[in-house]
Amino acid sequence: MTRALPEIEPMHRWASDLWPICRSLTGEGVRQTLSYLKGLLPDLQIRSVPSGEQAFDWTVPEEWNIRDAYIEDVDGNRVVDFQQNNLHVMGYSEPVDRVMSLEELEPYLYTLPELPDAIPYITSYYKRRWGFCMSHSSKGRLQAGNYRVVIDSTLAPGVLNYGELIIAGDTDEEILLSTYICHPSMANNELSGPVVTAALARWIGQEQRRHTYRIIFIPETIGAIVYLSQHWEMMKLRTVAGFVVTCIGDERAYSFLPSRLGSTLADRVARSTLADFVDHFDSYSFTTRGSDERQYCSPLIDLPVVSVMRSKYGTYPEYHTSLDDLTLVTQDGLAGGFRILQRCLQRLEDNRRYRAVFMCEPQLGKRGLYPTTSTRDTAAQIQTMSDVLGYADGHLDLLEISELIGVSFERCAEVARSLAQAGLLSVDPVD
Amino acid sequence: MTRALPEIEPMHRWASDLWPICRSLTGEGVRQTLSYLKGLLPDLQIRSVPSGEQAFDWTVPEEWNIRDAYIEDVDGNRVVDFQQNNLHVMGYSEPVDRVMSLEELEPYLYTLPELPDAIPYITSYYKRRWGFCMSHSSKGRLQAGNYRVVIDSTLAPGVLNYGELIIAGDTDEEILLSTYICHPSMANNELSGPVVTAALARWIGQEQRRHTYRIIFIPETIGAIVYLSQHWEMMKLRTVAGFVVTCIGDERAYSFLPSRLGSTLADRVARSTLADFVDHFDSYSFTTRGSDERQYCSPLIDLPVVSVMRSKYGTYPEYHTSLDDLTLVTQDGLAGGFRILQRCLQRLEDNRRYRAVFMCEPQLGKRGLYPTTSTRDTAAQIQTMSDVLGYADGHLDLLEISELIGVSFERCAEVARSLAQAGLLSVDPVD
Amino acid sequence: MTRALPEIEPMHRWASDLWPICRSLTGEGVRQTLSYLKGLLPDLQIRSVPSGEQAFDWTVPEEWNIRDAYIEDVDGNRVVDFQQNNLHVMGYSEPVDRVMSLEELEPYLYTLPELPDAIPYITSYYKRRWGFCMSHSSKGRLQAGNYRVVIDSTLAPGVLNYGELIIAGDTDEEILLSTYICHPSMANNELSGPVVTAALARWIGQEQRRHTYRIIFIPETIGAIVYLSQHWEMMKLRTVAGFVVTCIGDERAYSFLPSRLGSTLADRVARSTLADFVDHFDSYSFTTRGSDERQYCSPLIDLPVVSVMRSKYGTYPEYHTSLDDLTLVTQDGLAGGFRILQRCLQRLEDNRRYRAVFMCEPQLGKRGLYPTTSTRDTAAQIQTMSDVLGYADGHLDLLEISELIGVSFERCAEVARSLAQAGLLSVDPVD
Repeated sequence: MTRALPEIEPMHRWASDLWPICRSLTGEGVRQTLSYLKGLLPDLQIRSVPSGEQAFDWTVPEEWNIRDAYIEDVDGNRVVDFQQNNLHVMGYSEPVDRVMSLEELEPYLYTLPELPDAIPYITSYYKRRWGFCMSHSSKGRLQAGNYRVVIDSTLAPGVLNYGELIIAGDTDEEILLSTYICHPSMANNELSGPVVTAALARWIGQEQRRHTYRIIFIPETIGAIVYLSQHWEMMKLRTVAGFVVTCIGDERAYSFLPSRLGSTLADRVARSTLADFVDHFDSYSFTTRGSDERQYCSPLIDLPVVSVMRSKYGTYPEYHTSLDDLTLVTQDGLAGGFRILQRCLQRLEDNRRYRAVFMCEPQLGKRGLYPTTSTRDTAAQIQTMSDVLGYADGHLDLLEISELIGVSFERCAEVARSLAQAGLLSVDPVD
Repeated sequence: MTRALPEIEPMHRWASDLWPICRSLTGEGVRQTLSYLKGLLPDLQIRSVPSGEQAFDWTVPEEWNIRDAYIEDVDGNRVVDFQQNNLHVMGYSEPVDRVMSLEELEPYLYTLPELPDAIPYITSYYKRRWGFCMSHSSKGRLQAGNYRVVIDSTLAPGVLNYGELIIAGDTDEEILLSTYICHPSMANNELSGPVVTAALARWIGQEQRRHTYRIIFIPETIGAIVYLSQHWEMMKLRTVAGFVVTCIGDERAYSFLPSRLGSTLADRVARSTLADFVDHFDSYSFTTRGSDERQYCSPLIDLPVVSVMRSKYGTYPEYHTSLDDLTLVTQDGLAGGFRILQRCLQRLEDNRRYRAVFMCEPQLGKRGLYPTTSTRDTAAQIQTMSDVLGYADGHLDLLEISELIGVSFERCAEVARSLAQAGLLSVDPVD
Repeated sequence: MTRALPEIEPMHRWASDLWPICRSLTGEGVRQTLSYLKGLLPDLQIRSVPSGEQAFDWTVPEEWNIRDAYIEDVDGNRVVDFQQNNLHVMGYSEPVDRVMSLEELEPYLYTLPELPDAIPYITSYYKRRWGFCMSHSSKGRLQAGNYRVVIDSTLAPGVLNYGELIIAGDTDEEILLSTYICHPSMANNELSGPVVTAALARWIGQEQRRHTYRIIFIPETIGAIVYLSQHWEMMKLRTVAGFVVTCIGDERAYSFLPSRLGSTLADRVARSTLADFVDHFDSYSFTTRGSDERQYCSPLIDLPVVSVMRSKYGTYPEYHTSLDDLTLVTQDGLAGGFRILQRCLQRLEDNRRYRAVFMCEPQLGKRGLYPTTSTRDTAAQIQTMSDVLGYADGHLDLLEISELIGVSFERCAEVARSLAQAGLLSVDPVD
């Protein structure tokens, strides 16, 4: 039997709920986001690491919080207003409250002339700056004259927060899911990652699994580095495969970014699953990486981590602008992303190294393993049984056997399970 | 010098002699067949294993013997007669002696509507049944009414017989030849296998060989399983290559079925020999296997065994019917099969890992190894000598060197022998 | 910064200076040649090995010296004159002084009917003979009658000479350059090898190098065998790559001859350098070898030695004739050969296995490693930095990383050096 897929969770609604929150590397928006996710995942642990803590070559930055920000003309009209779109403020802007002429203000205004209606997403985490982002067209409408410029933010020692959910399985062989919760109001990059990851975590928790799952919701880059600095030794020993979950919500494409050398179990399962379940996918080089696989696959860490995405960051026009919104990301888009990752995880659960119990072929007839009715599929069924038995040497895994015998992984897994139930195949206790 | 090939033995005559015998897994027909083969191979040992003996997951079945069988109409005419063709009785039919109406008889009659003039070959080794096989056209001519149905057979504890011939060579590295003697009157599948194997065995015995040859004439499947259950540990240690000899007598095709992973010495020698000596051959996947390589290549046995065939079982229309006869199989067809297997065995005999004796190139001139007359072939001759010396590192075997330097295996072997005689190459004592 | 290439040395003038000398395996001409090279390379050591010394399967031959040789007609006219071209005498000719009829003389005259104006190059090192080589057209003009035939040569115990230059580097990992000084007045094969090797040696000596260079000027075949018999154990331990420098002076082609199995560091660096720096090169099989790689790559020696050439020996019509002269070999041709070998050596110097210092990505911003101005190349520059860091695992060398990330070796090396200077990459002390 093919296991029925559960109903798809309302990921688009979750994304809508999270949309208005102003997320960044640190601060209240991150905590609100984690708190919402804890509503979906009650076992999620919310961790904090103090500003100033060292993590390899990096230091945890000060905590940034922002209450309001605007540019007001002499008539008191807010011509740029953080309350309307949190992209209007450069991330990690230091506080300011000044009156400036338009000319003086100019260097602090960021626009995208090639996308005149989009507000760009800009941050300055490690150099103190302030700035406003706005559409090029609305900037063009600004009149000469004085403006009051207010950013009511604080940059001060505090904490960096992240969420961690460990779902214990039968073994301590781990699968890593890592997504990031530092992007303000943008949808594909990156509310899609957290909501798809939450849905996957809820699905994983529905039954006892073979693998242990390490699922983390972190700020990008610094969060991965901090998390690795705390956990890399155990992760190095235990991780059999991992996925950075990002850009997983639009309907345009499926994409694959491999690990550093491209041949880990994660690469194999992702490539084969995409090849089997979607019509087409774009395969990128590791040199086009741009998210937390930069840390997970860095040479001294070198974990088996890949990215399975829909439209990859940097490849679609709305990327890192206000146009990356919840019309670009849809429930169908999210559902497609969820399903392909779910297939990958299910394959990892089912991918074992089976070993024949008997020398020579077993006698299938006396065990009732031959189909009782003789249909057109009967011969193929017997052939698959025979081939799964014939390659079950304890070395080849089902992904390899599926490729060798030209039968889908899911069918091979089903046949292997029934042969194991009949006492004809064994698996290593921990495999 | 290229060694002259011996004259081809009268294999088609041997097949004609063996044709009428009713072979099955066990019984008198098998013993008659082995006795005939012992006439050709005096050192052949005829072994017996009692019914009920366990062999891995299998049990040796009862012995089946049949004296007569027929369907007689009310006028005493035999409308189906085992004396005319032993395919008329389902193999391992239990005894019966009844009068039945045509309607009652119907479920016991097996035909091939798509080949209306062929008698199908059907057996029921492990479930007690009885039945008659006949051409679809003659079944159509049966009149309604009563018939006397007689099968004068016995199914009783007895023995399973097989033939075993060990031809000791200089080393105990073994080459396996395995063929089956359980098929009644059919020619390609399978009188061709026993007669070609007998001819090969006689040729092997003509001179002292490097390898020891284990040559077995067994009933298919149960015979291989029984034989392996008795000998697999020694075979696992000693076997360097093996061949299932089956379907080796028609003139239509040459075929190759690889071992489980396709890269053993047997695979390498078979592929290269077919490529070099026949115009075309069909290369099959291991998933289309169907003879005793199912046992030899099963994952816990995993011997380096392949099949070099003419038209593979299951691929020609006459397969497993009375049309697979001695007009389909010809002396020329058998001779072609014999020769290609003989080439494979000769290559295995000649395939050594030579090692240069001198550091740097030896001085060929002072040893008279340069051709004395300067013909068009002289340069090529010197080049081959130089290249065989140049790759003789004790690791590469001649099959690999032949491929690397683009010179036929036979020419490489000849050159290597003369270089060894001149003291310029050595071989490991056991290689 | 790309290191500036030094000015090209006057190799064609050196070749012109060496042109008239009558070189052979041994003798005064070899010593004159080595003495000239010592003028260019003051540290060159001139070694001698006595006639009769054993070297593996070979014996150092007697020393050959020649003062004059001619064929004189009855009128006292020299119709063949060694003073005009030293190719006129078969190499290693024994002395003769006889009057012979043209008919008697005939078997001692060697010509090339297919190149009627060329004097062929012929030797008889290991069988005592004498002979004259001449153009086919001038032979045709000889009149019937008597001729005085004189070869004023000596063949007597003496020495075999060779030149050896060891340039010590930071490590004792060695690079071998081997060229031969046994060919009389021919240019591509082989004055090009010694003069390009001399120019390379002078360039290597200009600064302290990572590798030690073993640079030898030897007679072909017997010289390599003698040298290996004296040094192979140390060479086996230390040699990381080597080049036979031959046929490196014409303008027609670039060529590559691999090592025995084709996958050593020398093969990798030569293939990639040729691919990157010349428009096209001819890639030959090891079975077409014909110079001292025959010894260096022989199976029990098996050093990582390749040949990077211009037009390979045996492939151009002037080969081994008087037409292989200093119009065929040009300063431009020699310069091209010099530059490609120089690139190979520079790549070997720069090809290291770097290892990241920090776990996870380092913070480039705080180290000022980001380009200060933002140009079109900035993104590519950052990407290369990130990719060199991302693959610097201590296992992959820069040749492999360059291929993996699709950036030129030279750019990778430059980036790696600056990352190492910034403390972000380390190298093993001896790597």
